[in-house]
Amino acid sequence: MKVVVLLSGGMDSVTALYEANARDDVVAALSVDYGAKHNACELPFAAWHCEALSIPHEVVSLPFVDRLFRSHLLTSGDAVPDGHYEEESMKQTVVPFRNAIMLSIATGFAESLEAAGVVIAAHAGDHAIYPDCRESFMSAMGNAMELGTYAHVALIRPFIDMTKTDIVKRAAAQQVRLDKTWSCYKGGDVQCGTCGTCVERREAFLCAGVQDPTTYLASPPLPERPSE
Amino acid sequence: MKVVVLLSGGMDSVTALYEANARDDVVAALSVDYGAKHNACELPFAAWHCEALSIPHEVVSLPFVDRLFRSHLLTSGDAVPDGHYEEESMKQTVVPFRNAIMLSIATGFAESLEAAGVVIAAHAGDHAIYPDCRESFMSAMGNAMELGTYAHVALIRPFIDMTKTDIVKRAAAQQVRLDKTWSCYKGGDVQCGTCGTCVERREAFLCAGVQDPTTYLASPPLPERPSE
Repeated sequence: MKVVVLLSGGMDSVTALYEANARDDVVAALSVDYGAKHNACELPFAAWHCEALSIPHEVVSLPFVDRLFRSHLLTSGDAVPDGHYEEESMKQTVVPFRNAIMLSIATGFAESLEAAGVVIAAHAGDHAIYPDCRESFMSAMGNAMELGTYAHVALIRPFIDMTKTDIVKRAAAQQVRLDKTWSCYKGGDVQCGTCGTCVERREAFLCAGVQDPTTYLASPPLPERPSE
Repeated sequence: MKVVVLLSGGMDSVTALYEANARDDVVAALSVDYGAKHNACELPFAAWHCEALSIPHEVVSLPFVDRLFRSHLLTSGDAVPDGHYEEESMKQTVVPFRNAIMLSIATGFAESLEAAGVVIAAHAGDHAIYPDCRESFMSAMGNAMELGTYAHVALIRPFIDMTKTDIVKRAAAQQVRLDKTWSCYKGGDVQCGTCGTCVERREAFLCAGVQDPTTYLASPPLPERPSE
């Protein structure tokens, strides 16, 4: 089955790329630069893995998102807050309907390449904050993709019921180079270790019992998870 | 209700803009330049109507579509064919998943503006060729939009069960300046009168019994509709 993989250069989508490559014919990986503070940090890692796997890599830019959309994740937004990923303040980093925008572009691209599916690495840990990471959204979007294309392009979401800890375990089992991935929402030269997504990353390695190969600016004790 | 209207500068979306403006609070009209041969012809008309109605107008560009997608509608594609809009050859002008891409961007923009809905002017005449103009797609996409946003942004599709003839009648009733709209897929200085979308436009005025104010390069007798 020919598929297009949405690839940010973070650990989830990089792991999804390796799993798709083992299972399917990955005709292209697609990265989207939507003006986030950390896009410039992620994209070189996305390119690195595509080169390692000899997979064609396309990057598309959406400069208008930074101009028209409101989010602290964007270069036009305020500072990214520290703290646990699931906390209320992290909602400020949501880029509205980002996954739908990326999936729609990937689907049109997939139809042009005669691919039958699009892979996205959204996982269960994203559900609390991001409405467009939940299975209810994915199910509706998958229907829209199948009904809106001649080829009935499928939405493949292998990690939708998994935690980030599960993903670290799967990556470790396949010896995916997670040191060559980026999570930190703040951007910069080194991942901060304290923003929501760095905390989530550190916690995932810890819970998976896998050595974390990442260099962080600071590694204070992890905050407790907020009660559900 | 605050809404964002997708506005190409064609007669359908221009009419939808006037109707939305009479009914709702149109906080912005959004035009998408996706590299079609006729985008440069449509966009000045989109801007003209927004200025006439004092509605903020945003244009976003997706230059990668022309590079990565295959369609005769794009500047990278072959010549746009002549003939009836519903004929097989017109399928070559489909830009894969275009409506989903535009709706997704408009939805993220709407959420940033605290708008509750996005208006698209897709109509029944589009159904034969475009999978992403059909109600089945719109229903799924509307679900994805509601589930994927905090504000549960609604997909408003006022013309989905109407013909283009119906739209001409509605525009005429409101004295919408349809001379200030563009349909022709070929681009150029004057609408050709013979491509699928020009034939559809001419037929709609004829069937509506409304004087066609458009200047065409040629106005040969309209081809017969292919049998259903």
